[in-house]
Amino acid sequence: MEVLFTFIPKEHQRQQLINEFPEVQFYFEYKDKARLPSADILVTFGEDLSAEDIQQAGQLKWIMVASAGVEKMPHAAIAEREIVVSNVKGIHKTPMTESVLAHLLSLKRSLPSIYDNQRKKEWSRKTGSTELHGSTALIIGPGAIGMEIGRVLQALGVRTIGCNRSGKHADYMEGMVSFDSILKVLPTVDTVISVLPSTNETKYLLKKEHFQAMKNTAIFMNFGRGDLVEDQVLIDALETGEIAYAVLDVFEQEPLPSDHPFWTMENVVVSPHVSSHSEKYIERALDVFIPNLKLWLAEDAYPTNLVNMEKGY
Amino acid sequence: MEVLFTFIPKEHQRQQLINEFPEVQFYFEYKDKARLPSADILVTFGEDLSAEDIQQAGQLKWIMVASAGVEKMPHAAIAEREIVVSNVKGIHKTPMTESVLAHLLSLKRSLPSIYDNQRKKEWSRKTGSTELHGSTALIIGPGAIGMEIGRVLQALGVRTIGCNRSGKHADYMEGMVSFDSILKVLPTVDTVISVLPSTNETKYLLKKEHFQAMKNTAIFMNFGRGDLVEDQVLIDALETGEIAYAVLDVFEQEPLPSDHPFWTMENVVVSPHVSSHSEKYIERALDVFIPNLKLWLAEDAYPTNLVNMEKGY
Repeated sequence: MEVLFTFIPKEHQRQQLINEFPEVQFYFEYKDKARLPSADILVTFGEDLSAEDIQQAGQLKWIMVASAGVEKMPHAAIAEREIVVSNVKGIHKTPMTESVLAHLLSLKRSLPSIYDNQRKKEWSRKTGSTELHGSTALIIGPGAIGMEIGRVLQALGVRTIGCNRSGKHADYMEGMVSFDSILKVLPTVDTVISVLPSTNETKYLLKKEHFQAMKNTAIFMNFGRGDLVEDQVLIDALETGEIAYAVLDVFEQEPLPSDHPFWTMENVVVSPHVSSHSEKYIERALDVFIPNLKLWLAEDAYPTNLVNMEKGY
Repeated sequence: MEVLFTFIPKEHQRQQLINEFPEVQFYFEYKDKARLPSADILVTFGEDLSAEDIQQAGQLKWIMVASAGVEKMPHAAIAEREIVVSNVKGIHKTPMTESVLAHLLSLKRSLPSIYDNQRKKEWSRKTGSTELHGSTALIIGPGAIGMEIGRVLQALGVRTIGCNRSGKHADYMEGMVSFDSILKVLPTVDTVISVLPSTNETKYLLKKEHFQAMKNTAIFMNFGRGDLVEDQVLIDALETGEIAYAVLDVFEQEPLPSDHPFWTMENVVVSPHVSSHSEKYIERALDVFIPNLKLWLAEDAYPTNLVNMEKGY
């Protein structure tokens, strides 16, 4: 049994794997797929896997993706071979919630201007600071991450509305709307936060009319995937004052091209797809992987966090 | 009965007062104390009140201070005349908690470098972001504001320790220490947050030895009063790496002199005493004042939020 990692866990983490699974041969090869042909299990960030790789990986039965998004993976090739795919859905919820909250509170409490004034050594007490407390947030995609965002926002006195395809219940949401009914609630919302994955249904889900329906003071935060809204639609909404601010962790094209207008727009924060970063990332990914590998070896059960490659999440 | 405001509430707020209290003559005079001699009640931010003012204010029976700190007020003159002093303790808890959390999460989630990189149009994904979750915070001064900070930090998975003079219980604190025992817990703490008022007991409470006892990775946040620690002690701790970061909303001298080292230190955030700012400030102050004024007129009871001018809080 061969397990190939295309990233390198820390020394003590590698040793833990080797000790716990003496019957398994582990290879830790940074972005190196030379050992794919003999690998039974692949543990990868999933970004650099091609259909040819899958063809070469004749023994491959399980791909453990140490991230949440699988949209860049060769879906057809994997599905055809009936390779099991699992991810680490949920391990992003803490760092992502903290990033969403950091950016939101930073704007409410004037941190950008506080930082700017410090650079200028300017003691300026005219901040225009407002409060997050008492505002309303729409959370588009209230899965593991979205519900954690909802939980924390509620603790801060924010009214939360969830939005998913069906409008069915999600925890920590005071109300729910379906994708089809989103226009109805947008005029009541102060913050629109998307953590949606990229699927056929979510691509360009938000259109010009949605931004027109938002408050002029609204903050739009995209922490899901960049193709939720066309760049030009968002740029227009920001330039015409349909909304006040956009905080973007994801983009239609990543890295964001250096001549892209977002970089220099006063009311845009460009975060380079880092909201899930955490010093605890690999540790948590292994916390998902290790019990799953035990089940797998015992031929007892499929891994948890199975990904349906047809749906894309 | 004359009530003198030395700041100007909004039109609708002034009208509300006039309508609710037809028997009271209200004067709204921005920083103008000409009407002090005939005023029965003074509503003020409290920063510009001198002992001479108190002498002139022969009718004055109640000073309502629309802020929390009273250390700049002429204590002896007020006490001698037995003038009742009340403040708006508690109305700062929401904006201050949001500011503390904004600054703390901003550092954990790398917002300063995200903002800097945007200015340089640099797509840099090496953030070194860490998590607030799982860390330990020491909250020095767990009164209304400190307990609200504790409540929110607990919701974010932070272990909270409170510190007050006696070490007696405060809500939302998993543990408590007294001022005398603070050294014992400092080595276990990731964030030290002070919201202490300025009193004889809190002046220079934190000394060199306290910063030496903190973790080298500790973040020190002073949102109480600037004389909690001597500037030079804090500068030394930051320059020698005894602690990692200081976020300061208050200073020994305010405004912070333009040649002060804090302005340009890489590991210091200078916030110009704005953490309590909120668009809801006056509204909340009047929410405290109006019921108190009703009680006062009915000669029914003293105002809530009475300040003991001898203790200073």
